[in-house]
Parts: sequence; structure tokens; C-alpha cells
Amino acid sequence: MRAPIFCALLLAALALPAAEGMFSVDAVTPAVAAEMKAMGCRFDPATLWRPGGKCLAMAVVNLGGGTGSFVSADGLIITNHHVAFGAVQSLSSIEHNYIRDGFLAADRAQEVPAPGYSVRVMTGFEDVSDRFRRALRPGLDPLKRLRLVERISRELAAAGEKEPGNECAVVPFYGGRRHYRVTYLKLRDMRVVYVPARAIGEYGGEVDNWMWPRHTGDFSFLRAYVGRDGRPAGYSPDNVPFRPGHYFPIARTPLREGDFTAIMGYPATTRRWLTAAEAANEAQVAFPARIALLERFIALLERLSAGDEAVRIKNAGVLKGLYNSIKNNRGLLAGLERDAVLAGKAAGEKELAAWIAVDPARRKRFGRLLPAVQRLAAGEREIIPLEAVQARLGRGCRLLEWALTLSKWGREKSRPDLEREAGFSERDMAAWKERLGVNQRNLDLKIDEAVFALYLESLLAADQPGFFAALAREVDSAPGAGRGERIAAYAAALYAGTRLADPAFKQELLQADARAIRACRDPFILLAGTLQPGIDALNRRRGAIAGEWLEWKPLYVEALAAMRPDRLRPPDANRTLRFSYGRVEGYSPRDAVRYAPFTTLSGVLAKERGEAPFELPPAFRSAAREPGVGGLPVNFLTSNDSTGGNSGSPVLNADGELAGVLFDGNYESLASDFRFRPDLTRSIHVDMRFVLFVARQVDRAGAVLRELGLE
Amino acid sequence: MRAPIFCALLLAALALPAAEGMFSVDAVTPAVAAEMKAMGCRFDPATLWRPGGKCLAMAVVNLGGGTGSFVSADGLIITNHHVAFGAVQSLSSIEHNYIRDGFLAADRAQEVPAPGYSVRVMTGFEDVSDRFRRALRPGLDPLKRLRLVERISRELAAAGEKEPGNECAVVPFYGGRRHYRVTYLKLRDMRVVYVPARAIGEYGGEVDNWMWPRHTGDFSFLRAYVGRDGRPAGYSPDNVPFRPGHYFPIARTPLREGDFTAIMGYPATTRRWLTAAEAANEAQVAFPARIALLERFIALLERLSAGDEAVRIKNAGVLKGLYNSIKNNRGLLAGLERDAVLAGKAAGEKELAAWIAVDPARRKRFGRLLPAVQRLAAGEREIIPLEAVQARLGRGCRLLEWALTLSKWGREKSRPDLEREAGFSERDMAAWKERLGVNQRNLDLKIDEAVFALYLESLLAADQPGFFAALAREVDSAPGAGRGERIAAYAAALYAGTRLADPAFKQELLQADARAIRACRDPFILLAGTLQPGIDALNRRRGAIAGEWLEWKPLYVEALAAMRPDRLRPPDANRTLRFSYGRVEGYSPRDAVRYAPFTTLSGVLAKERGEAPFELPPAFRSAAREPGVGGLPVNFLTSNDSTGGNSGSPVLNADGELAGVLFDGNYESLASDFRFRPDLTRSIHVDMRFVLFVARQVDRAGAVLRELGLE
Repeated sequence: MRAPIFCALLLAALALPAAEGMFSVDAVTPAVAAEMKAMGCRFDPATLWRPGGKCLAMAVVNLGGGTGSFVSADGLIITNHHVAFGAVQSLSSIEHNYIRDGFLAADRAQEVPAPGYSVRVMTGFEDVSDRFRRALRPGLDPLKRLRLVERISRELAAAGEKEPGNECAVVPFYGGRRHYRVTYLKLRDMRVVYVPARAIGEYGGEVDNWMWPRHTGDFSFLRAYVGRDGRPAGYSPDNVPFRPGHYFPIARTPLREGDFTAIMGYPATTRRWLTAAEAANEAQVAFPARIALLERFIALLERLSAGDEAVRIKNAGVLKGLYNSIKNNRGLLAGLERDAVLAGKAAGEKELAAWIAVDPARRKRFGRLLPAVQRLAAGEREIIPLEAVQARLGRGCRLLEWALTLSKWGREKSRPDLEREAGFSERDMAAWKERLGVNQRNLDLKIDEAVFALYLESLLAADQPGFFAALAREVDSAPGAGRGERIAAYAAALYAGTRLADPAFKQELLQADARAIRACRDPFILLAGTLQPGIDALNRRRGAIAGEWLEWKPLYVEALAAMRPDRLRPPDANRTLRFSYGRVEGYSPRDAVRYAPFTTLSGVLAKERGEAPFELPPAFRSAAREPGVGGLPVNFLTSNDSTGGNSGSPVLNADGELAGVLFDGNYESLASDFRFRPDLTRSIHVDMRFVLFVARQVDRAGAVLRELGLE
Repeated sequence: MRAPIFCALLLAALALPAAEGMFSVDAVTPAVAAEMKAMGCRFDPATLWRPGGKCLAMAVVNLGGGTGSFVSADGLIITNHHVAFGAVQSLSSIEHNYIRDGFLAADRAQEVPAPGYSVRVMTGFEDVSDRFRRALRPGLDPLKRLRLVERISRELAAAGEKEPGNECAVVPFYGGRRHYRVTYLKLRDMRVVYVPARAIGEYGGEVDNWMWPRHTGDFSFLRAYVGRDGRPAGYSPDNVPFRPGHYFPIARTPLREGDFTAIMGYPATTRRWLTAAEAANEAQVAFPARIALLERFIALLERLSAGDEAVRIKNAGVLKGLYNSIKNNRGLLAGLERDAVLAGKAAGEKELAAWIAVDPARRKRFGRLLPAVQRLAAGEREIIPLEAVQARLGRGCRLLEWALTLSKWGREKSRPDLEREAGFSERDMAAWKERLGVNQRNLDLKIDEAVFALYLESLLAADQPGFFAALAREVDSAPGAGRGERIAAYAAALYAGTRLADPAFKQELLQADARAIRACRDPFILLAGTLQPGIDALNRRRGAIAGEWLEWKPLYVEALAAMRPDRLRPPDANRTLRFSYGRVEGYSPRDAVRYAPFTTLSGVLAKERGEAPFELPPAFRSAAREPGVGGLPVNFLTSNDSTGGNSGSPVLNADGELAGVLFDGNYESLASDFRFRPDLTRSIHVDMRFVLFVARQVDRAGAVLRELGLE
């Protein structure tokens, strides 16, 4: 049970499930601390975060899309199997199938680089809202407002990054009502230490994904390395393990139902502060559009992978993500309907309108609010389908992404760093150079061309505003009876004529200036020239709306907070470090069914079917059949609030020890990104007792166990 | 919790689930009575059955394939929707779709006859084992032994039936170790009083069939009528309601988890006393054969029903039964594997062999037992596939059934009643005359011909012993390239030439003697002449084996009972009245999942999808959405032992009042016909509170409610 700050005692007395809470690290008010203690927490909540001092946050790392935590003084990190999946995939080949068989370094010398992986440890978290408040006059042109916010953010970040090894992000909270500068130490030399076999790490696969009861060993171990001076550095055989400011010891007391739990991690996005019209856009336009695109994308990749093991390995990571996405999107849409999110939002705004109307002061401050936010949502509704295509397919096609990015570099790099578009600073350039290599690794031109054709077809079909009219004319000039045929002919010609699959050519273009890019006759670079104005127009439209939201969303939050001063909910997740507290707790998914919060080893065996995703490695099977181990906990549920990005988060017990690793939310929790349901929302974790069982009994990972202080 | 007699106190003390028990009505030993009382029973177990006196059994009726119970002094019977389904189907047409809409008689004058329905009330239950023991010398020829048992049974039954209105059955218990004569009062004028809409009575349909959580209003009300003299009579408008010796009042206290429950009813068949080789025959031959036949039969009927509403209505009852059967067969086969029934049986017989071997007296009495029962099972294995075809398809084809039966009548009727084959007594003749009309009602010659062709094909394919060689030659003389084509041509010719679809022709043949039948040139009657010798040969083979079982099965039971005198389990179900006691109790179907024993009205609404089988009538929907009713119990689970035939059984609370009506077992219980699993076996019931809610709030069935004493 996790309670909000305000009615903690009442809820504790009633033993009712509580409301959401992804608290930022500076939100440990006395009330929160008291509530945590009442729920059984024995560590001092003040140790969660201490700027510059030893604290729990120093043991938590941001892994890009996921989270991890230090579990040894020598920079050993535990995270999810699915978070390390990309690294394992890059290391794998038909000869060394680490995806299938797992990977275990017998000693440090055998630990292999995780290409493209880095982790960030938070070292600073400052409220910089005043800096924005001073600069942003009301009534500013929306696009100018947006650019100003971007510029201030960049300036603040750049100032923070003067210290070498630092990386800074300036992040809005409460829709821009507040801003924080977050400072990280970024560790770039990451290596793979131990990953169990896929049959364990992904047991249940897509069938069980988001489901409970669950029996997945979704864990892996990485290690962060630094230069001999202790400072962040790129890979070098001379590097040494990073010494974190704190690491989590493995839990010594068995976790039980009802026990206090805390998680810390990097949740990416929640949308709980959406207006009614924004929620309607999501449910009625965005989700249906995304689901339709995903269905087509998945069908395409499955067709191309069928019967070709090499193609299958190349597509594995992408397909895994797509299946995850589509199940997520479908569950979310179903949850929005089940939880009557639209109706609830509409009722809330009706109440807000009435609250504003009865008071002259409120009418003065908020009178224009609701019409404004409705107008903004109507404007967004028109561009959502196009944005869905860009988000879902625009990055699925590698040559297209390179062409657009390289073209854009040509233009942006001649401008001063602070004036460039986001993503094109000098720092980004370095990241790009590195990514070009990784990105190349799994390139398959047949796949890429097919995805490109699907992208073109979807983009032109969704282009109601006509942003891409020039592209449509160009495609329609290709030979063919219908648009489908013309797109295929157009794509075939492009792929036959381009040199963009050649890494040397790409590096060459990355050095080139705007004039050289303009002179380049590579058909993909030419296409980028045709496409970019449409993308720019779409981005300007989005930017103008975003600029207006920067004015109105803070006011919307202010109005709701003023109407219900006793009910201010935490800010939406925004990829910054959050903690949440809760309890080990099951739930009732439907009438007459109750889910217990722990699954067991005997449940793993009961699910086995002899074929993936329910086929166990023989070593696991025989270890799990040993007498007396059937009751060993495998996965568990807690009422902690979490979302995507929390994957790999440490689950701490009442003593601040590591009891598990978060790897999923339950299916019923998907819509909790929009509305938290205390009776249904649960996080799913792998129990450390199962991690240690697999490491010890199945994989004989002696070095890891010794480093954890367990052998 | 339901405990066997012997270890009742121990189990009660441990609060463990108990073993099976479908007790015959004379099995209320003091130990059983004490156990019932310990579990909370407040009615006197001695009132379950009193020969000739007022007792609970007088309120329980046998409805052929199901059970019902009296709920008013005027012969009102409650049973399942699916038990009354056949009656409702016969009354339905496209104009009056009572299947879809339900049926409610506003008063007694509107109650309509239920064609083909009758109920039997048990009035006598006598142990007649001595009569058999005296007659059956050891070493008798097997077929003679069988015929002798049949003859003694018939004689005893005939003696009991001298009293008009009586119907008797002589039934073996414990594989023929004991025999009982059961006397019934048979009430033939049955009428339909109230049946809810199919969307309620069958909510969840095949999707939820055998499943929990369940939300089905599987109930209906019939009434038994008798002549003005109070004696059984055929339908007459002058008949009056039957006055039962006892009826169940509706429960006045709310049933809760853990409460004592008793059920009484007519379970058809359990197979818990099978030998190891018999169980292997079931798992390895009989179930796979049955499932394959059902798959083909269902596919055929679905194809014929597609797009033709009239055909669909005609097939509805048959298809419902087939879907029920296939799900049952599949669950059963899966359960046999899950519960390791074969391994358990084999281990039991190994133990038995050792027990026999160590003692000279045992070797003398049981030395030949195990080889004998193994030989018998091996003989059965050969004919099982043919018997499966006869059982599953032989009766699916109406013209064939008539042809065979009418031909046989011609031969049998010239013999004295007591010497005729079972099913061809004078009493059976009357039933047949009646059935010919009912049977005619849903006849569709197109369906019948297709089923006939499927029957022929399956029969000839399964005929390894060569019983039907003459038929094979006849079919193969029809034109066509392969056997499939020849069968189709043969069937087409038969259906084009026969007059058997004409009821007058059938009644004419039913009067004809053997000579007239022989002279009849109707092609179906000629086919019967070809087919009958094969059927007779199959029956003789089965009869010889059955005759041997009559010698060996009692000895097998005796040996097991002697080896474990403290563990004698109840006899297998055999369509006689049984009672079982248990508790309201959920279960855990798999790791981390727990099923609660009650479902609720809000759960009914939560399942609605807007299409069958999850589409509610508007009147139900609005009634169920009234405030405060969401928690009303709908269905519930108990640990009572039951099986097919128990459908419609009254569920009594501790006071002997009607708390619910049994309508199903859970999926996990299917294999309990072979081996009882106290942790998994549950009966599923509709709660009387839900029955009354539907009657009152949805269907406004005022007259029924008043008769139940509730308005």
C-alpha cells in the first residue's frame, strides 16, 4: 500500500490501497517520511538523496531507456535481461549465440564491451524555475517562447557541463510550472558481465509480457569502467572499475507479503496531467493510429524473418520492442476505456469550469484557460497521425534516418552550438559518430527497403494537412499502376542508387558542410531535401502548439491545484530520478480471482511446454527439480508506482537492501500512465532469491556471487 | 471440505480438503453423520432417505440425463436451463424463439407440455445382491452369465413394477459386487413453467463452459402433473399438479464461504474402480478416438448450419451437446495426464500383486485375478474404436436409428417380454411410439444424410476386427473413384429411395411382424439387415467381455478392499440417487492464482462484450446496474463430489434448504471421474439469490415467486 502525502494516516487506518506517487528526490517531506515509517521502512528517508553527499541515489543509474543499480564497490550493475538485450544482441552471431545461450565472464578480463551503452549517475538536482519565470513574459509568440525555453535550458545545461565528465539536462515539471537542472556523471565504458540464457531471462516471452502470474528471470549484470584517474572515459583495456558512492547490499531477510518496498529509477513518461481533450486525442486518434502502424510493421518484419536465421537475429531486437509496444498500446487503450478516463477528465473539467465561473478573481486569472486548452488539443488532433508515422516508422528505416540527419548536420553545424536545433550540438555530433558504427552492425538492405516503402505509404496516407505534397508528386512520378506499385519502384530505385550503406561515405558526409551536402547527388540525400521541408513544417506546427502549451499547461496545473489544494498529485514522469514506496501486495484482476504477490519455482516448471517461450534449459530444469526448492520465490508484485524506464530499477526492502529488480508492470497497470488505479496497478519484479538461484545452481557464476559477498 | 467416512476427524482437525464421496442413500453411517455435523450440518442426516416415509430424497427427481428438485407443494421443479433446453427447443420456431427470449407462463393454464420429458421420484432402494449371488455359479460361460444377470434384473424389475405407475431398475454397485433394486414413481406429464432468456441461462456459452469464474443463470422451472386420482398419467388438460412428499424451501440465511453444503442427484458414471489396463485403454485409445470423431461431427454440423437459421435451430441442441462433449473429453484427457492416473493405477496394481504374492490364501483366491483383468482390457482395446463410432455417430443419424430399431422390433416382439434383448420390452415399445413423434420434429434430411455418410466412413475406417465386411462390400459397389465418393453415392441413393422420413410409414413398420419386416424393400430397412449382423457380432464380443468382468471386477474390488480395509471408496456413480456433502470453497488453479468461491452481479456486467455469448438482455442490464446490487452472488463453488447427471441437483445448506442449483463442474474436475482431486475438484452452482433476482427484477415472474412463498 502506498499513500499520498496528505491522507496517509487515514488510509493507513482504513487499510485501503493508496494513490500514485513517483516522487522526485527532493520531495521527502516530513509527511512522506512519516508515512514510509508507518509502513515499516527502517532506513532514513533523508538518505535517499543528499546533494554531493553519500546517498541511495548514488547507487542508481540511468541506462538510457532503463534503470540499473550498483551492487558492488567495483561498479557491478544489476539491471534487466531486456535492458542488456541490445548489447547481447550486438555481441551475438550464428557461431556465438549469446542471446540464446547467455554470457558469463569467468573473470574481469573476459568482460566484453557493451557497444553503445553508457550509464549516468545523478550528482545534482537544482530548481532553476526562477531563471525561466524571469525570462518568459506572458503573450510571447508561441514559437519564440518555445525557442527561448530551449535556449535557456541549453545555456543552463552548458554551464553545468563545464565540469568534465558531467552531463546536464534541464527538465520541466508540471507542464513547465517548474524547471530543474539535473547533473549526471556519465560513464561510457560499459561491459557485459553475466546474462542468463534467453529461455530464463525471457521465459514466457510475448505470451507472458505484462502478465501475472509471471516466471521470468529478467536480470543481467554489467560493469561500469572509468579511466585510471577515476574519471569517465571511452573504452580502453587500461580502464578500471568505477567505484560508486553507494551500492545496494543483497537483502538478508526474506521478503514477505505486506512488507514495505521502495523503488528508485528513471520512469520516462506519464500523462496524468492531460486535459480532457488531450486524453480524447490519445484514445480516439493516437492509440488507434499507433496500433494500426505497429500491426503492419510487425507483419512486415515477421514475413522477412520467416525462414532466414540471419535476418531473424538482425530483426530480433526491433521485433521484441515492437511486440512490447503493441501489447502496451492495446492494453493501454483497453485500460483507458475500462477506467473511463475520458469521462473522468470531462467531469473534472466541468467541475473546474464551474469553480472558475463562481469567482471574479478566478474568472480573471483562468477565464480563458479552458477554451485555450481545447483549441490547442484540436490543433494537435490534426497532426497526430503524421507524428505517429514519424515516431513509429521514421526511425525504423536506417538509410532514411542517416540521410535526414547527415543533411541536417550540413546545415546546423555552421551555426553556433547554442543556436542549433535540439539534437545537433557538438556533443550530439560525438554521439552520432559513435552510433553510426553500431547502427551499421545489424543493417540489412532488404529489410530497410521494405520498411522504407511502408513508411512512405503510411506517411502519404496520413498527410491530411498536405505537408508532404512535394514528396507525393515525386513518388507518383515513378512507374506503376497504383500508389503501392509506384512506391515500390521509387524505393527500389533509391536503394539501387544510394551509397549510404557504406560507412566511409557516411563519415565523409558527416564532415561535409552545407554546400557540399547540397552538391551531393546521392538519391537518398536528394530525398532528404524533398522530405525535410515537410518535416520542418510539421515540427513548426508542433512547436507552435508546444509553445502555447508552455503558457497554458502551468496555468491548468495551477487552476486544478487551487481548486483542490489538498489533492496535488506528483508531477508526471519525465526521465528524471524518482522514488516510490509501496508494499508487497497482490490484487484481484476480475470477479472471484485473486492474484498472490509471489510466484514460485514449481510454477516455472508447471508452465513448461517444451517449446519457446516456455522451454527451459536442461541445467535449469534439473536444478529446479531438486527436492525442497519448489517454493523458492521467482517474481513478485508490489504496489509501487512505476512506468516504462523503470525497467531494471532496484527494489529495496525496509532496510534499503536489494530485494528484487523491477522488470514490468501488470497488464491492468498500463493505463496508469493516464490514471493511477491503486486497486489494480502493480509493478512486477524478479526476486533476488531467484537471481541467486540461477547464478549459483544453474550458471555456476562464482565470481559474480563472490563479488556480491555471497560465496 | 468433504471427508471420507474413516478419517473424518483427522481431516477436520488438519483443515485439509477431503476425498471423494458420492454416497448411496443407505450409506449414512454414524461416522458420516458425525462428520456432517462436525462440518456444520444442522438437519438430521437420517432424513436423507427413509423407505416409504417423508424424507429429503422425495424432493429430488431424475430427469433422464439430469436432476431436479421440487420447490413447492404443487410439483414445481427447479432444474438447469440446459436440462430444460430440449423442451424449449422443441417449442421454439422462428416465430416464437423461446430459446432466445425465454418462456414464462403467467398462470398454470399457460404452462405448456415438455415433449419427451418425464421425471422419476425414488420410492424404493433394496439390496437384492443375494438373489444374484445364489444364481451366479463361478465358471459360468461369460455370455450366459451376462444374460442371466440381465434376466434376473428384468425379473426383479418386473416384479417391482406390478404396482401401476412404478418403474424399477436393478443396478450393479462395485462392478457387480452388490445389486440394488431401485423403484421410482414416474411422472410423465411435464410442463414448462419458466425459462430465462438464453443470454442469461447460457451466459458465457461454450467459452465459459466448465470454467470458473462463472456467471451463468443456468436454471429453469418445470412442473409435474398427474391424473385427478393423483397417479402418474400421460398429458391431459384435466391433469392436476403432483403433490410431492417433500419439497425444498428456499434458503433463508445467506450462504457464505466455508458453509456446509449437501447435494443430492443422479450422477451418471464415474470410473474410479478401473484397472490399470482399463485406464490405459481410456487414455490411449478411447479418448483420442472420441475427440477425433467429435471434431469431425462438429465441423460437419457447423458447416451445414452456417447461414441457415432454420437449420441452425434444428442443430442447436445437438451442437450444444457436442461442444460440451468435446470440451469435456479434452479436459478429461488432459486431466488424466496431469494427475498421472495411469502411473497411479499401475503402481496400485504392482502393490496389489505383491500383496497377493506373499500369502498362500490370497494366492489361492486372487492368484488369477491380475492376468485375467489384463486379458479382458486387451480384448476391449480392439473394439473401442468401433464402439466410439457407434456411440458418437450411430445415434446422430435419425433414419439409421429408426431403421435398425424398427427391424429389431420385428424380430424381438414375437418373443416373450422377459427373453427379449434389453430395450425391447413392451414398456420400451410405448416409449418408442412416443419418441417417434418427438424425434420427427427437428428432422432435416440434408443434415441426416451428411451425418449418415460420416458414420459410414468412420465405421468402416475403425473396423479392424472386420465385423462390417458385408457393409463394406455393399458400399464399395456404389459408383465413385474413392471410398468417400462411393459412400456419398450410396447415401444419396438410400435417402432418395427411403420412405422412412414419413411418420405414418414408421408407425406402420412398428406394428409389423418379423416376416413383414423381412419382406419390406425400403433401402434403409435393407441396410439395417446388412448392418445388424455386424452390430450383433460387436455386441456379442462386448457381451462376452462384460460377462467376464461380472466375474472378475467384484473380485478386483474385493482384493483392493481386503488390501486396504481402511480405505474403501464409495462405489462408482451408476445413475442412482447419491448425496455428497462438502463446503463452499474456492481453489488455486495455478501458481499465484486463487479462485474465490462466489462470483457477483458486477462480474456479469464486467464480462459483457455486446455479442453472444456475452450479450445481456437490456432488462437484465438495467436491473443489474441498479445501485447496491453489484455484490449479489451469482454462481458459487463447493467441494461436493459430482459428475454428469448431477446437473440440476439441489444444493442444500446446513438447514436442508435450497441454496443453489448445481450446473457444472470446474475444468480441473473433469478427470475426477477417474481420480478425485480434493484440492482441485469443485462443483459449480447458480445461487438461489441470483435465480430470485432474475425472476423478480428481470422477468417479473410474480406467479413463480409467490409459489416459492417469496412475494
